[in-house]
Amino acid sequence: MNGHDIQIGPDGKLHHFLSVEGLDREMLVSILDTAERFVDVGRQDVKKVPLLDGRTVMNLFFEASTRTLSTFELAAKRLSADVLNLHVSKSSTTKGESLVDTLKTLQAMHCDIFVIRHGDSGAADFIARHVEPHVSVINGGDGSHAHPTQAMLDAFTIRRHKPDFSKLAVAIVGDILHSRVARSEIRALNTLGVGELRVVAPHTLLPARVDSFGVQVFTDMDEGIADADVVIMLRLQEERMRGAYLPGHGEFFRMYGLTQERLKLAKPDALVMHPGPINRGIEIDSATADGPQSVILEQVSNGLAIRMAVMCMVLGVET
Amino acid sequence: MNGHDIQIGPDGKLHHFLSVEGLDREMLVSILDTAERFVDVGRQDVKKVPLLDGRTVMNLFFEASTRTLSTFELAAKRLSADVLNLHVSKSSTTKGESLVDTLKTLQAMHCDIFVIRHGDSGAADFIARHVEPHVSVINGGDGSHAHPTQAMLDAFTIRRHKPDFSKLAVAIVGDILHSRVARSEIRALNTLGVGELRVVAPHTLLPARVDSFGVQVFTDMDEGIADADVVIMLRLQEERMRGAYLPGHGEFFRMYGLTQERLKLAKPDALVMHPGPINRGIEIDSATADGPQSVILEQVSNGLAIRMAVMCMVLGVET
Amino acid sequence: MNGHDIQIGPDGKLHHFLSVEGLDREMLVSILDTAERFVDVGRQDVKKVPLLDGRTVMNLFFEASTRTLSTFELAAKRLSADVLNLHVSKSSTTKGESLVDTLKTLQAMHCDIFVIRHGDSGAADFIARHVEPHVSVINGGDGSHAHPTQAMLDAFTIRRHKPDFSKLAVAIVGDILHSRVARSEIRALNTLGVGELRVVAPHTLLPARVDSFGVQVFTDMDEGIADADVVIMLRLQEERMRGAYLPGHGEFFRMYGLTQERLKLAKPDALVMHPGPINRGIEIDSATADGPQSVILEQVSNGLAIRMAVMCMVLGVET
Repeated sequence: MNGHDIQIGPDGKLHHFLSVEGLDREMLVSILDTAERFVDVGRQDVKKVPLLDGRTVMNLFFEASTRTLSTFELAAKRLSADVLNLHVSKSSTTKGESLVDTLKTLQAMHCDIFVIRHGDSGAADFIARHVEPHVSVINGGDGSHAHPTQAMLDAFTIRRHKPDFSKLAVAIVGDILHSRVARSEIRALNTLGVGELRVVAPHTLLPARVDSFGVQVFTDMDEGIADADVVIMLRLQEERMRGAYLPGHGEFFRMYGLTQERLKLAKPDALVMHPGPINRGIEIDSATADGPQSVILEQVSNGLAIRMAVMCMVLGVET
Repeated sequence: MNGHDIQIGPDGKLHHFLSVEGLDREMLVSILDTAERFVDVGRQDVKKVPLLDGRTVMNLFFEASTRTLSTFELAAKRLSADVLNLHVSKSSTTKGESLVDTLKTLQAMHCDIFVIRHGDSGAADFIARHVEPHVSVINGGDGSHAHPTQAMLDAFTIRRHKPDFSKLAVAIVGDILHSRVARSEIRALNTLGVGELRVVAPHTLLPARVDSFGVQVFTDMDEGIADADVVIMLRLQEERMRGAYLPGHGEFFRMYGLTQERLKLAKPDALVMHPGPINRGIEIDSATADGPQSVILEQVSNGLAIRMAVMCMVLGVET
Repeated sequence: MNGHDIQIGPDGKLHHFLSVEGLDREMLVSILDTAERFVDVGRQDVKKVPLLDGRTVMNLFFEASTRTLSTFELAAKRLSADVLNLHVSKSSTTKGESLVDTLKTLQAMHCDIFVIRHGDSGAADFIARHVEPHVSVINGGDGSHAHPTQAMLDAFTIRRHKPDFSKLAVAIVGDILHSRVARSEIRALNTLGVGELRVVAPHTLLPARVDSFGVQVFTDMDEGIADADVVIMLRLQEERMRGAYLPGHGEFFRMYGLTQERLKLAKPDALVMHPGPINRGIEIDSATADGPQSVILEQVSNGLAIRMAVMCMVLGVET
């Protein structure tokens, strides 16, 4: 038992989804299996199922993220839930209300799910500890801590192409230090039993005790992606380019950018992934981002299936 | 007949809900009775009824209020209406359109209900006088004039705990002068026949002719809440703390803040209420806001029931 | 075949709706006929039909327009579609994503329709050329290029009052140069076979080769509207009043403003139209805007019917 066992209800089922940390392999596989049932919903004319009819989902976004908000909003609507989008920074702070009071007020409106997006690490966890038992919290990304639905949609995308995780070498490339995606991803893929997990980054973008994460560390890109089955490129924050972390766009791209040429070092059928939005010409060139090995847009589609799955699971709704 | 009889349609039923002023006891009781039928909707898994299916509710907010907007949006959605949120100050004023033209345009889209939130007193009334007969207007708070759904949800919350208004002493404490809540509340509770209605505030926060409101006036908090059955704390606007009205946070809290100690002066089972958002440590201490006598979060839940009731009533929909 | 044939699918049916240019008379009549079936939906209590149940409509607004957004949002909701409003300028540009990547991401969420509002001419066209075959694009106004749903709702409004286009003289008055409405309108009304189409404007507000548009050009208002069956006033942009284009409010109104007096020059039953929002006292006086010949608010109502019609048609849904 660790700090994240609040995710599991007394019945042993998923109650909150805050982090892949604290969830065992069986639970993660169960999320992936549930998501399989939603993959085809988006392909139908009627992209809608009545599973969460009459439930209320509140998207509590403390930082703007149109892309993430859109996927959660659509996922909830396609489950027939009622959705409320709340940009909290702009509103309640203008009246000086505390976060906990805002939460209590919203859950008194009989909210079923809070989706939380926050700039501070641990915010979703904090909120889950303060809501009533009938409310479930889903972490839509908090600080540099966790972005568990992104990690699960990546695992899901990999599994659809390469079902046996144990045989795979997966390389995660770029800003490991600040990426909430990377942290969640490393944990998820290790729990799911990926054969070989590598991180590839300059020293300045590696977390302090990265060797304790259960990964192989590479500072050389060519070595890091050699014979990889999957290459996951991370998004680089523009502002970090001008600080102490990095020399500049051109230099970063030369050393860690994914090109068609470099991709040849990986397995011939290696998947190319990126959580988006892409910085073309910084992390990846366009030929590779749009090439036949890229599953970047599949990741987006699969993101909806994962979010629909998690919403149903935390509410205990059979799918 | 007075200025608010436009609220009543030719059939004698509620057509607009602009103010509790002009509505008789029977009408107010009818709103409370209707809301009773919606209290349990929020507690169900399927928090939805088809009463306003296919109707269009437009929330016209001329000032930001996430909390109030959320309750009206949710109330409409749980009645199965289609909802449009319009932040009017930002949009139509950029094109220089007059308010009346904006209204006419929106009602030409076949809107059923306008919920109005406006910074100017009388705005909802003005709008109700300019809409077509098939459109109903609900006041979601206008200037320091009225906030009738808040007043009704407070009356509703009181009645659920203490059904006989005639036996109650209710004290309203704080910024009576600027509070739209206070004005609506005094009127509603008097009309509903509250036995003894008191206002408690410093001279600087009392309206000019407060003695004509049908209330007992107290400037001493201890006297004002003595043996009260209900203590309604008002929200204090931060900006008024730095002006001529008030000495400062600490001083106000010392004189008019509700504490566990002070609450002992009221009846042992006195209800503690607050319209929110709470300024903890200014109007009320946390032990009292979160204590066993507090019904502050019940007020929020009941707010949905009241808003659902009013929406159905103004459209003449049987519940 | 011209630049707009991408609007027509391989089956000969409407696939995108970007401009009335490139669409033949039969297609425009088909849009009008389809809209007829939706006119009464707004007048019912249940203003909703299940035609687009489970479809996803994304309103991609690169410039603010509450009025246009509201009509598309309502049109989609009344067709039972799920709607996502995206204010793209504010969001994705903050992360530096390219427009095409934003589009690809959104369509990977299995969007059915993009409604595009953009400040640049040709934006909707560009987007239609970059979406996948299963996605339809509707132009909600791009730069000074086109605003085809506005043109169609105007044609629709005219036809409901005066069914035989061939017998009509229609005068379009005001800022022809910058108006996306005017361009679309001229094209639509010519294609629909309006007998006599006139534009009335000062030289400074006429496009360079206006005589090639198939219109009669008037710089004198009295001559331009003489015996007209329909007078369509355009909105004048405030900012153009202070530049080289125009002398000032008073002067413009004196020369080109529509008044009750001037309207007598047109046919006695001439329709008065305006796309809104109206600048009262600049393009038109209030007596005329609100007078018996004005169909300005009908235009708004009809706008919903046209948008519902176009949404169904581009998705190939039988109405």
